[in-house]
Amino acid sequence: MSGFVSFVGSGPGDPELLTLKAVDRLQQADAVLYDDLSSGAILTHVRRGADLVSVGKRAGRASPRQDHVSRLLVDYAKGGGRIVRLKSGDSGVFGRLEEELVALHAQGIGFEVVPGVPSACAAAAAIGMPLTRRLTARRLQFVTGHDVTGTLPEDLNIAALADAEATTVVYMGRRTFAALAGLLISGGLPPDTPAMLAEGVTTEAERFLRSTVAELAETLNRDPPSTAPALILYGALAPEMI
Amino acid sequence: MSGFVSFVGSGPGDPELLTLKAVDRLQQADAVLYDDLSSGAILTHVRRGADLVSVGKRAGRASPRQDHVSRLLVDYAKGGGRIVRLKSGDSGVFGRLEEELVALHAQGIGFEVVPGVPSACAAAAAIGMPLTRRLTARRLQFVTGHDVTGTLPEDLNIAALADAEATTVVYMGRRTFAALAGLLISGGLPPDTPAMLAEGVTTEAERFLRSTVAELAETLNRDPPSTAPALILYGALAPEMI
Repeated sequence: MSGFVSFVGSGPGDPELLTLKAVDRLQQADAVLYDDLSSGAILTHVRRGADLVSVGKRAGRASPRQDHVSRLLVDYAKGGGRIVRLKSGDSGVFGRLEEELVALHAQGIGFEVVPGVPSACAAAAAIGMPLTRRLTARRLQFVTGHDVTGTLPEDLNIAALADAEATTVVYMGRRTFAALAGLLISGGLPPDTPAMLAEGVTTEAERFLRSTVAELAETLNRDPPSTAPALILYGALAPEMI
Repeated sequence: MSGFVSFVGSGPGDPELLTLKAVDRLQQADAVLYDDLSSGAILTHVRRGADLVSVGKRAGRASPRQDHVSRLLVDYAKGGGRIVRLKSGDSGVFGRLEEELVALHAQGIGFEVVPGVPSACAAAAAIGMPLTRRLTARRLQFVTGHDVTGTLPEDLNIAALADAEATTVVYMGRRTFAALAGLLISGGLPPDTPAMLAEGVTTEAERFLRSTVAELAETLNRDPPSTAPALILYGALAPEMI
């Protein structure tokens, strides 16, 4: 008799941003497989005696191979009991959820997905800024700054991304932002479009840097790399807020 | 001495999807101004004796004017104490947050924004579907199906929206989806692009309808209007999940 897997979004890092359902699933779990960004105080809800398994994903560091993580999850689930697969933010947003769901589907293992607070929503909230604006930012988009090879994806929809009237949030985009900014500006985005770097949102490492698309690209090209997880927001950001 | 306002995202409706911080703010509140979508069991966390004020926003019904809501919020805040402004989903995503923030800024009233689980994330989680996919859906976008006049916005970025390689979520788009679908298909989106209607996500009224962009447009044109809040998802939806 296989176990049951709850994919749980932990939110951006602040343990107070766990949902009640996430806390319940952590309390009931026999084993918790967690990413590094979903660790620390978040794990205090796990009962003594449960297995705590780090699968070690962290921005800017080598990660275990995804197929290894999926296999580990299947192995735990086959052992029975209640398994929590804890992912930062919302697990459906750039969380590699599909690969793990497919692995469970293939083995007939039951699961549920418990949504969480996406890091982008937490970043905007932390500085008191709305992500959408009634008259200007009526489109909000999230993109990833790297593909499976770790470089900027080649098939970007530049017409969609070079839009100063939308709010765009780039996940995992620090290393590739200079290249992305070049494409955006060539694609018609004004270089002085407001931009913001948000690092370590809701954690002790939280830091915001207000800038423009062109300036932020220069800054990130110049600065030493950091391992804090980072989001880059640009577009129709509310000026009085940032 | 003015009070302090906490804008709190309640999540999509299921009270178990409140964050711990949202529960804390509800428990501490002297007054809670809430939308209809953030009512019911969610409000059981409010202490006896606190003011509970419905500001009556609901899909498909006439709503109080936004400037009236903002004025009411300012009036409560000027009376002192801890005020919670409860909004469904994440208050930064199509929550009319900016108008209320501007009103508080103008009066020098302190505030914080507590992020919540967006309805789009909860909809995808409820059917076990990721919103992003590592090889195909590397862009996720949220748009609104109506502007300040209640009709389809005129300045839509069709190149951004007619993209079968992104996941698009349309908020408040049921009444205008037939018109939007026409523009999308003219703009190059294949009519058989997977689409899904998600109604009343995580509530008793939850209902999902799997379809395609062209078929869903026809269905919504034909069906009697419903007042349940609805999201429409289309694009690179994971086929094995829906």
